[in-house]
Amino acid sequence: MALTPRAEDYSARYNDLVQQADLAENSAVKGCMVIKPYGYAIWENIRDILDKAFKKTGHQNAYFPLFIPKSFLSKEASHVEGFAKECRVVTHYRLMNDPEGKGIIVDPTSKLEEELIVRPTSETIIRDSYRNWIHSYRDLPLLINQWANVTRAEMRTRLFLRTSEFLWQEGHTAHATAEEADIEARKMADVYYDFAKNFMAMHSYLWEKPTHERFAGAIHTYTFEPMMQDFKALQAGTSHDLGQNFAKAFDVQFTNKNNEQEYVYATSRGISTRLIGGLIMAHGDDKGLVLPPALAPIHLVIVPIFKSEEDIAGIKKYLSPELEKLEKSVFTVQSEFLDTWKSDIKVTIDEDDQKSPGWKYNEYELKGVPLRIAIGKRDVENGKVELYRRDTGEKLLITIDELSNTVTKLLEEMQLSIYAKHAAFTKENTYTADSYEDFREKVEKGFVLAHRDGTRETAEQIQEETKATIRCLPFDYPIEEGVDMITGNKSERRVIFAKSY
Amino acid sequence: MALTPRAEDYSARYNDLVQQADLAENSAVKGCMVIKPYGYAIWENIRDILDKAFKKTGHQNAYFPLFIPKSFLSKEASHVEGFAKECRVVTHYRLMNDPEGKGIIVDPTSKLEEELIVRPTSETIIRDSYRNWIHSYRDLPLLINQWANVTRAEMRTRLFLRTSEFLWQEGHTAHATAEEADIEARKMADVYYDFAKNFMAMHSYLWEKPTHERFAGAIHTYTFEPMMQDFKALQAGTSHDLGQNFAKAFDVQFTNKNNEQEYVYATSRGISTRLIGGLIMAHGDDKGLVLPPALAPIHLVIVPIFKSEEDIAGIKKYLSPELEKLEKSVFTVQSEFLDTWKSDIKVTIDEDDQKSPGWKYNEYELKGVPLRIAIGKRDVENGKVELYRRDTGEKLLITIDELSNTVTKLLEEMQLSIYAKHAAFTKENTYTADSYEDFREKVEKGFVLAHRDGTRETAEQIQEETKATIRCLPFDYPIEEGVDMITGNKSERRVIFAKSY
Repeated sequence: MALTPRAEDYSARYNDLVQQADLAENSAVKGCMVIKPYGYAIWENIRDILDKAFKKTGHQNAYFPLFIPKSFLSKEASHVEGFAKECRVVTHYRLMNDPEGKGIIVDPTSKLEEELIVRPTSETIIRDSYRNWIHSYRDLPLLINQWANVTRAEMRTRLFLRTSEFLWQEGHTAHATAEEADIEARKMADVYYDFAKNFMAMHSYLWEKPTHERFAGAIHTYTFEPMMQDFKALQAGTSHDLGQNFAKAFDVQFTNKNNEQEYVYATSRGISTRLIGGLIMAHGDDKGLVLPPALAPIHLVIVPIFKSEEDIAGIKKYLSPELEKLEKSVFTVQSEFLDTWKSDIKVTIDEDDQKSPGWKYNEYELKGVPLRIAIGKRDVENGKVELYRRDTGEKLLITIDELSNTVTKLLEEMQLSIYAKHAAFTKENTYTADSYEDFREKVEKGFVLAHRDGTRETAEQIQEETKATIRCLPFDYPIEEGVDMITGNKSERRVIFAKSY
Repeated sequence: MALTPRAEDYSARYNDLVQQADLAENSAVKGCMVIKPYGYAIWENIRDILDKAFKKTGHQNAYFPLFIPKSFLSKEASHVEGFAKECRVVTHYRLMNDPEGKGIIVDPTSKLEEELIVRPTSETIIRDSYRNWIHSYRDLPLLINQWANVTRAEMRTRLFLRTSEFLWQEGHTAHATAEEADIEARKMADVYYDFAKNFMAMHSYLWEKPTHERFAGAIHTYTFEPMMQDFKALQAGTSHDLGQNFAKAFDVQFTNKNNEQEYVYATSRGISTRLIGGLIMAHGDDKGLVLPPALAPIHLVIVPIFKSEEDIAGIKKYLSPELEKLEKSVFTVQSEFLDTWKSDIKVTIDEDDQKSPGWKYNEYELKGVPLRIAIGKRDVENGKVELYRRDTGEKLLITIDELSNTVTKLLEEMQLSIYAKHAAFTKENTYTADSYEDFREKVEKGFVLAHRDGTRETAEQIQEETKATIRCLPFDYPIEEGVDMITGNKSERRVIFAKSY
């Protein structure tokens, strides 16, 4: 099957790519996806790296129930408003044979006393536990992370980007002071940003969400939103300062140093399988995925060109000293929160004799495998090997004894250069606009830094007319005053507008 | 809080231990547990080791939906019978404000067209995908594993042992021949057995389940069931040969080598957080948990005896060369499926100045930390260090420069000796009985190898009168004919009876 060209229909192309590269597919359950082995292997890499970063920043993992009593959701008023429309509700606990013989039905006598919500997020059930865990300032900070599945009843779904069930991590912390909670929320947003930059090779603006875009129940929401190739922003992960809202709703108090009872200050945050959608849309090219080596399930694929078993045996023997070296090698990634991160180098040999080398080249290019070797009899005779580099399409003819060193070096180089490409793309397509007319033109082809008066009305008018929303109040731009491009009212700072996923 | 003595009430003691050692607790949702950080760290160790073994045996991870359409469950007749009474059923997808102002209610207009079952296990939804993934014998074998949460509506629950939600892995394979499927089911039972032996330090009998104890839909069920300290068997994990039952129900066919359409042969298997309950009951002693080093979240705890900050600084300086060596050290475990497995050595220093050393000793003994150092000024002056070994209670006074080597050696030794102790305990309490009278006496204090005629009636009579069930047809005992101890009818072999969890 041919991939829809990027320029023709970016959305159709995305779906083609997810399915043809064997990342995920739709399931028999509306809105829920099956994450296939190749896609899941990317998720495992994301999970393992972030898990290390969380543990380094003092977090421990735990696990809380999938089900949330319905009454819990209503305890935090804005929270229930945010999630009530997305809840899967369990009402019964037993099936039975239809007395009329028509298959199985829900046993009407098995109705639950209180309905259970399948967790859309776990603030409520976790805070309910924290009430019993926290007594004194000595129990704080409490830094807990959970890797879990969550469900939301979505109407329009897209693989990875918006699904009725997804995998994620959710961090939930409790602190003794408001300041400490806000520092934590910002720090963990930094961890996400660092991860996106150094592992996902995605540049993103780190910023605060405007008031009306915050998480249901938060007082500050920090986010990182990389630019996709269609110039839309992807809300890739958020970190919330919850203040005392949930502590008050769930009565989580502690005895502070002055021996007074006080509500704890909380944060929460999460990233999900949505990130995989981001990877695809940030780096993919006309041939398919381009995976940054740090997250690639396979780093090097070897395609032998052979006619007989002996040919293969000869090729393997020829490669084996270098493959042994590769097995002991690692490539490294530098990052702020993990210092020097090391990865094994995963090599695959595709010996399938039913598929042509050409078919295989296409397949592994589609799947974004960083490096490929095609190797035949002549290479063996000449002591050479040809390396193909997925991100640039370059071919390198090297001598066999250079192989393991070159692979290691290239993987490190590709990781940086895929990021540099995305950072340049983001910069090229980030504009400043002062008039609404200019804004409307530019927001069709990138992110736009513009002044706004901060009212919900202006934001809604702009969204209606352009489909763009305020993505954030960016941290990394100087704050300069100005006037709203529509109303002429005072604006405290430029914010970033963009269309978004 | 004091632990209930083991001899007084084994069941109450178990609950005390789980909660006081901070492994898990009951949640606000009936039957669902919160797995606390210390308990979850044990689960992470179990998961990471098994995941490696699965990958080494050719499995890949994937993820399938949490929800299963109701109609799927009824496709495999014995499967629905096995699970219908345990299902959590989702019927609605939205909440709303009660028009009468009484909090939030389920929006009656949000009823689902088809109810969704929260997965009790995933055979049905996975086989539904396999229908599209498998076309030819070239697509086989398909070896997939999933790490997930599952839910069952349990009436009487106990932390880890029986909960309405638990974490597990479920393997689901498809094969071209009946023989290959059965070999796979047995091989993965061997992986479990190997894991139980070498990592959980639990001896178990490897065996086949009798017909009426099989998994709903299986043609053979292989299981490993270690003996707990109250002489009950724990069904710790099962591996099923499903034959073509699910393939027929979900129409999973492939073109075989003769170019004929045939249903695939399938297996499934799983282990869960229940294993943590097994760890507690197999090894715990009067002081609390005894964790085999391979699964312990902390290997060595250092309790400094100090009066001032300088004391602590002195102790740390004294220990630091050896702690640096430990940081670079690993201890190893030999196993059939993972060859030489290596573990980092996790060290904790407890500097809390609010708790006495004695309190800390009790706490870490309760938590089953394998090794402890208590160290004060005098040890520093003498160049000594005292090591306490949790499983035997021995104390060793060694010179400081022996520390890292001794710790590494002891961890390896403890892993083997905890297993040896459990194997001896199992052997000592496994009996042979030929008369029913003798059987009834012995089954109160161990496993009993006895003859039975293989009918369901006899099995039920025995269960009613003694609470013991046939746990298995053991692989590792010679098959000898005999007569049923009650009916006198012919028996093909001795089987193992025991009470069980």
